[in-house]
Amino acid sequence: MNDNLEEYVSQVARQAKEASRALVTTTGGRKNGWLQLSAERIRSQASTLLAENERDIAKAPEFGLTNAQVDRLRLTPERLEGIAKALEEVAQLPDPIGEIIDSNPRPNGLLVTKVRVPLGVVFFIYESRPNVTVDAAALCVKSGNAVILRGGKEAFHSNMAFYRLLSETLVECGLPEHAVQLVETTDRAAVGAFLKCHNSIDVAIPRGGKSLIERVTQEATMPVIKHFDGVCHVYIDRSADLQMARDILVNSKCHRTGVCNAAESFLVHEEIADEFLKLAGPALLEQGVEIRSDDRVRSVIPEALVATEDDYRTEYLDLKISAKVVDSIEDAIAHINEYGSHHTDVIVTSNFNSARQFTGEVDSAAVLVNASTRFNDGGEFGLGAEIGISTDKFHARGPCGLKELTSYKYVAYGDGQTR
Amino acid sequence: MNDNLEEYVSQVARQAKEASRALVTTTGGRKNGWLQLSAERIRSQASTLLAENERDIAKAPEFGLTNAQVDRLRLTPERLEGIAKALEEVAQLPDPIGEIIDSNPRPNGLLVTKVRVPLGVVFFIYESRPNVTVDAAALCVKSGNAVILRGGKEAFHSNMAFYRLLSETLVECGLPEHAVQLVETTDRAAVGAFLKCHNSIDVAIPRGGKSLIERVTQEATMPVIKHFDGVCHVYIDRSADLQMARDILVNSKCHRTGVCNAAESFLVHEEIADEFLKLAGPALLEQGVEIRSDDRVRSVIPEALVATEDDYRTEYLDLKISAKVVDSIEDAIAHINEYGSHHTDVIVTSNFNSARQFTGEVDSAAVLVNASTRFNDGGEFGLGAEIGISTDKFHARGPCGLKELTSYKYVAYGDGQTR
Repeated sequence: MNDNLEEYVSQVARQAKEASRALVTTTGGRKNGWLQLSAERIRSQASTLLAENERDIAKAPEFGLTNAQVDRLRLTPERLEGIAKALEEVAQLPDPIGEIIDSNPRPNGLLVTKVRVPLGVVFFIYESRPNVTVDAAALCVKSGNAVILRGGKEAFHSNMAFYRLLSETLVECGLPEHAVQLVETTDRAAVGAFLKCHNSIDVAIPRGGKSLIERVTQEATMPVIKHFDGVCHVYIDRSADLQMARDILVNSKCHRTGVCNAAESFLVHEEIADEFLKLAGPALLEQGVEIRSDDRVRSVIPEALVATEDDYRTEYLDLKISAKVVDSIEDAIAHINEYGSHHTDVIVTSNFNSARQFTGEVDSAAVLVNASTRFNDGGEFGLGAEIGISTDKFHARGPCGLKELTSYKYVAYGDGQTR
Repeated sequence: MNDNLEEYVSQVARQAKEASRALVTTTGGRKNGWLQLSAERIRSQASTLLAENERDIAKAPEFGLTNAQVDRLRLTPERLEGIAKALEEVAQLPDPIGEIIDSNPRPNGLLVTKVRVPLGVVFFIYESRPNVTVDAAALCVKSGNAVILRGGKEAFHSNMAFYRLLSETLVECGLPEHAVQLVETTDRAAVGAFLKCHNSIDVAIPRGGKSLIERVTQEATMPVIKHFDGVCHVYIDRSADLQMARDILVNSKCHRTGVCNAAESFLVHEEIADEFLKLAGPALLEQGVEIRSDDRVRSVIPEALVATEDDYRTEYLDLKISAKVVDSIEDAIAHINEYGSHHTDVIVTSNFNSARQFTGEVDSAAVLVNASTRFNDGGEFGLGAEIGISTDKFHARGPCGLKELTSYKYVAYGDGQTR
């Protein structure tokens, strides 16, 4: 069985590599045609897809899924329509491949250009929600990459149903059949085997819990686009519009709590701390937020609990927030760079110099002035769909859309130049 | 001693991280001032630098260096002037940091910008030539990065002399002293210890022989910008100008043989094979080039040796070249993608469709039409100086200049936006 697994993995990887070669020169029109046909098929094959999803739902108790997890797993006609629409939206995005990113006519007449090309083969490992199968396939193929999808066992039948649909439409549209492959075994060892295929696979992208990401980072022999914690801050500067600051803070914390770009901590300048806390404290408490803070905050919001050192490093993903009064913008920046996770941090201010200093010195993937942390998102930033959010600095940082799935090559045109 | 080594390594790494924080907001003027002052000091301290270099030269026999290696190690007044000039050239390059790479005004009024920032800390591992110490320090600091330099033991005294000079000028110019650090031990274990410091070091760049690069790739826990083989091709298409093709081939092979962008193989379309080989064969042989080829080439150039399968995958770095007749451009492209190292490949052609097909389908860092392979170089491509050439696709591909040492962050400006 182990021999069989290795053979299976290397076959899938090899097929992906071959497909990726053909995808390099596939026109945008053909790729978009596939996205549109796939959207139509999702609508026309809704009953099959829902029936397969029902098999996963029926098995959910075996896997010990919580109600919230079962809800994320469930497909409905509305959700299928959303998935089909998402495909159509990816079709609308400009084709990144072939774009001339930069050019340099040299004094000797050589025209040097830098042309966007696909990375090659993406190995995408994810958990539960079956819509991710379709989203990831769409983004990878649109950016000219072949993709090997490894979904969670809880969603196996739903994923297989989507995979069969996408394989059929690929062939019908004249795209390489193996442009999209789903790993058909739930054997955990398969992931390890794929992570060794650095000759065929150009990048691994894990999307899921921390232990999955840690495992992939540990075992991968190819580059990984990874996403760790989102310990995001809202800093309310001395010169902030306090009503605006309250609204941004409440939105950053409460709009959705289980997401990486939700605020987990806020800092307030001591000069306006009393006034702001009197305004923001009740607003947070009203939303059911538990505040964990230093004594200076607690002197104004007696309901706040005592924060430990650990609280300031914690991603609650819940209706909880840590809070602290700082003496200066410098203190705020130092705290954020030290305790934060370099994900998303916000300053609320009316002062130009504060905005300039904060955006310059805070070392995070996204730094916002006078807006909610919740805007750090591929859609909100205008990238179109995103395959994930990177907490790395290398290759891709922040929301990863089509361009982050690409590389480039130099193409130079001459008329006989020699050195 | 081992405890001491670990302590030393973690101190150097920590100091680099701290320095990198200050460098993020250091103005271009200050960085350029340091480059210019350092150039002046190299001129005014030439005698000290040459004396320290002399100590390395005296020790060279102990390390069993070849004459060519001793020559690369040696500093002369002319070479010092070249090093000083190189610093002044880096000062002339535009500052990459703070550049707005992209922007996206969103419908809700949020202005999203993508701003170039430094990667952070570079760990640069290299061999013999002491000028690399200065070049690497210049490129890293200009791009806002702190750098930890690990040179070869053969150049220890020369490197230390440059390092002392650069440390002094950093302090004089108000830059962080630890922006440039040289590893002061030649203990091999130090490299391994640094490669574990992924919390402080953002990228490792090895420059040297294959075994060094393999070791760094193996042991690094942070991203690596690496450079493997350059098995570069010249393909002479059916419609090539044959005189131009001969000149490009001879230049690609013979201009310098020991470099990664020298041609190691050529392919010629069967329709013009006889005519071209009659022209190119004598030209190559006259330069002392040993040709290893298939029978079709040998039928025209009887001096050619028989090529083995291995020859077509070999980076000779010498006056040797493999050769083959191909039946079509498709065969040429398939051969290059299969046997080459995705480094630099050239087509000589007068046909538009051939140029389009070759540049589109050959999967190499640089693909050139009607120009020598030798142009794949940071200087020749107009990037300014280069810290290396990447054979990866992730983050950086081909020549790596200042921009390849950078990342970006999203900075968004609002007036109270919430979701």
